[in-house]
Amino acid sequence: MSKFWSPFVKDLVPYVPGEQPKLARLVKLNTNENPYGPSPRAIAAMQAELNDNLRLYPDPNGERLKQAVADYYGVTPAQVFVGNGSDEVLAHAFHGLFQHDKPLLFPDISYSFYPVYCGLYGIASEAIALDEQFQIRVEDYARPNGGIVFPNPNAPTGCLLALDAIERLLKANPDSVVLVDEAYIDFGGQSAIALVDQYPNLLVTQTLSKSRSLAGLRVGLAVGHPQLIEALERIKNSFNSYPLDRLAIAGAAAAFEDRAYFEQTCRQVIDSRESVVAGLQALGFEVLPSAANFVFARHPHKDAATLAAGLREQGVIVRHFTQARIAQFLRISIGAPEQNQALLDALQGL
Amino acid sequence: MSKFWSPFVKDLVPYVPGEQPKLARLVKLNTNENPYGPSPRAIAAMQAELNDNLRLYPDPNGERLKQAVADYYGVTPAQVFVGNGSDEVLAHAFHGLFQHDKPLLFPDISYSFYPVYCGLYGIASEAIALDEQFQIRVEDYARPNGGIVFPNPNAPTGCLLALDAIERLLKANPDSVVLVDEAYIDFGGQSAIALVDQYPNLLVTQTLSKSRSLAGLRVGLAVGHPQLIEALERIKNSFNSYPLDRLAIAGAAAAFEDRAYFEQTCRQVIDSRESVVAGLQALGFEVLPSAANFVFARHPHKDAATLAAGLREQGVIVRHFTQARIAQFLRISIGAPEQNQALLDALQGL
Repeated sequence: MSKFWSPFVKDLVPYVPGEQPKLARLVKLNTNENPYGPSPRAIAAMQAELNDNLRLYPDPNGERLKQAVADYYGVTPAQVFVGNGSDEVLAHAFHGLFQHDKPLLFPDISYSFYPVYCGLYGIASEAIALDEQFQIRVEDYARPNGGIVFPNPNAPTGCLLALDAIERLLKANPDSVVLVDEAYIDFGGQSAIALVDQYPNLLVTQTLSKSRSLAGLRVGLAVGHPQLIEALERIKNSFNSYPLDRLAIAGAAAAFEDRAYFEQTCRQVIDSRESVVAGLQALGFEVLPSAANFVFARHPHKDAATLAAGLREQGVIVRHFTQARIAQFLRISIGAPEQNQALLDALQGL
Repeated sequence: MSKFWSPFVKDLVPYVPGEQPKLARLVKLNTNENPYGPSPRAIAAMQAELNDNLRLYPDPNGERLKQAVADYYGVTPAQVFVGNGSDEVLAHAFHGLFQHDKPLLFPDISYSFYPVYCGLYGIASEAIALDEQFQIRVEDYARPNGGIVFPNPNAPTGCLLALDAIERLLKANPDSVVLVDEAYIDFGGQSAIALVDQYPNLLVTQTLSKSRSLAGLRVGLAVGHPQLIEALERIKNSFNSYPLDRLAIAGAAAAFEDRAYFEQTCRQVIDSRESVVAGLQALGFEVLPSAANFVFARHPHKDAATLAAGLREQGVIVRHFTQARIAQFLRISIGAPEQNQALLDALQGL
C-alpha cells in the first residue's frame, strides 16, 4: 500500500493466470493452449508484415480483422469489436455494460477473472450456484440483475449450455446484457452469434488463443448489436487507440480466413479429448461432459492436490483450483496424442 | 445511447488519433512516426518468434523486456512496467494513481488523451495554462493537486522542460505523483529516469513508437519506484494478464539492446529537424524550439487550416488542432530528407 495509490487499488485481488514454465520438455496441460500451431496462412500473413512498415501505426480500427470475422459469421463489421485478447475485450465489456445499480450475475464455478473485473470497476455481483451436476440452470438467473455473464462451455467445468437455454435467458432478461464468453465454443458447441440479430441484449466474446492456436499473439473479439459494440468502441477509444499491432491484425484475419485448417485441428483436438476421457474413466476418474479443449475430472479416492503434485514430479503440469466446491477436481488441457498418453501413463502410477 | 450502457459511457469523449491513410505515396507527417525502420535486430528477434510457439501464451510479465529496459537505464526490473503501447500504460497510471479527491493538473496545451482518461476514470482535473512562450512554468503547479502529468518534451509544442525544473516540481509535491510522459525524450532531452531513485513520487513513461520505430508493434513502458510500479501491476493483472504478445516482447527487448542503431537514427532525425526548422523559418514561419521528432510552427500571415488543406492537396499530411490557443499552428513530423523537402516545396507555393 502506498499513499500515492488510488484508494481502490489496495483492495484489488488480481487474477492469477496458469503458470508459464520456463523449462522446456514439460508436458504442459495447464492453460488450455492448442497442441497444434497456428494456420500456416496466419504465419505467412504475419511474415508479410514483418518489415520496416512496423515504424507506422497500425489501423486503429483493425478493419481487416473485423471484416474477416464478419465474413466468417455472416454479420456486419459494425457488429464486431476486436481487442488485445478476450480478457481485454471482457474488461471493456464489464466497464461499459455492467456498471449498474443491480448486481451482475455469474456462476459460482466459472472464469475466475469475472470477480476481478468487478473489483476493478466497482461492479456489485452475485454468484449463482451451478446445480449438483455442475450445470448452469437458467431458472436460477430469474432475479433482479444488471447483467449476466458466463463462459460457454463453462470453465473450468467444460460443460455446455444449449442455445435454446441461452435464448430463454435472453428473453427473460430483455433489459440486461447477457454476455456469453465463448473462449472454448469451437470444440463442440454452437456459437450464440447465430442469435445476435434477434437479441439486442446479447454480446458474445471469443478468443483466438484456443481454437485458432494464437495464445501468443493476443487477439480477442466480441460480436453483438451495433449499440453494444459502440459502447466497447467508446471505451477502447478512451483507453488505447491502437490495441492491436500490425502483425496481430494480419495474423488473426488470416487465421479466420483459413477455415479448413481450423476445422481440421479442432476435429483432432475433439478426437483426442474423447480418448483422454476414456483413458481417465478407465483409471477410475469421474469426468464432467466436456465441449472444450480440456476436461474436468476427479477421482473418488485420490486427492486432487496430491495428484497434481505427483504429476508435476513426472513433468506433467495440469491446473488445480483450491475453491472448496472444486478442490477435488483437476483441469486437464487436451494436448497432442503423445502428451495425452504421457498424462495417462503418469496418472497410472499415482 | 443505449439503456444497456454503463451510465458514464454516454458522456465519454474519446480520443481521436491522427489519420492513418490507406493511400500509399502520401508524405505522411501527421503522427510523429520515425522515418527509419526498426532495428534489424528487432526484426530478427521477431522473426525468431514467428513459429508454432505462437500457440503458447507469452510471458505474462514480459521479463525479457523489463530486463532490457532495466539494463539500458541502470535500474532494476522491479522499477519497470511494460504495456501494450504507452497509451495503455498511461491509462493504468491514471486509473491506479490519479483517482484522488484533489484534481489532477496538466498543461492546457498538452497531449489531448489526458482529459479523455479523466473522463474514463472519473478523475477531476485542472488545466494549467502554458506561459506566453508556450512553456511549462513549474510555479503555476503550486496548488492543491492529486497528481501532475505532462509530456516532456511537451506535445504538440515540442518544448522541453529541464531536469532541474522537474526536480523543483517533485520537491514541491512530495504527496503527489508527478508523471513525466517522455514519448519524445530521445530526440533532444535528458530522461527523468535519472531521478527515479531519489523521488518516490516520480513516474516516467516512454513509448517504442517514436525513437525505436515500432509504432506498429504497440509497446510502452513506465519506470519509477517499485511501489508505483506495483499499482500498475495490480491494475494490469486485474485487466489483462498478457498485454504483450510474444513478438512484441522479443522485438521491443532487441530494440533496447541495439543501442548503436537507436543512437544513429535519433541523430539523423535531429539533424533533419534542424534543416526543417531552417527551411520553415526561411519561409517566414515561427517555429517553437523543439526537442521532439516534430516541430510546431505558425505563419504570421497564413491561416493554418488553409495551409493544412493546401498541403493535403499536394499529398502532404500534417496535423492541425482546432483548440483556440493553437489553431494557427501546424504540427509537422520530421520525415526522411526527401519527405521534408517535399513538405518545404509544397509550402513554398501556398
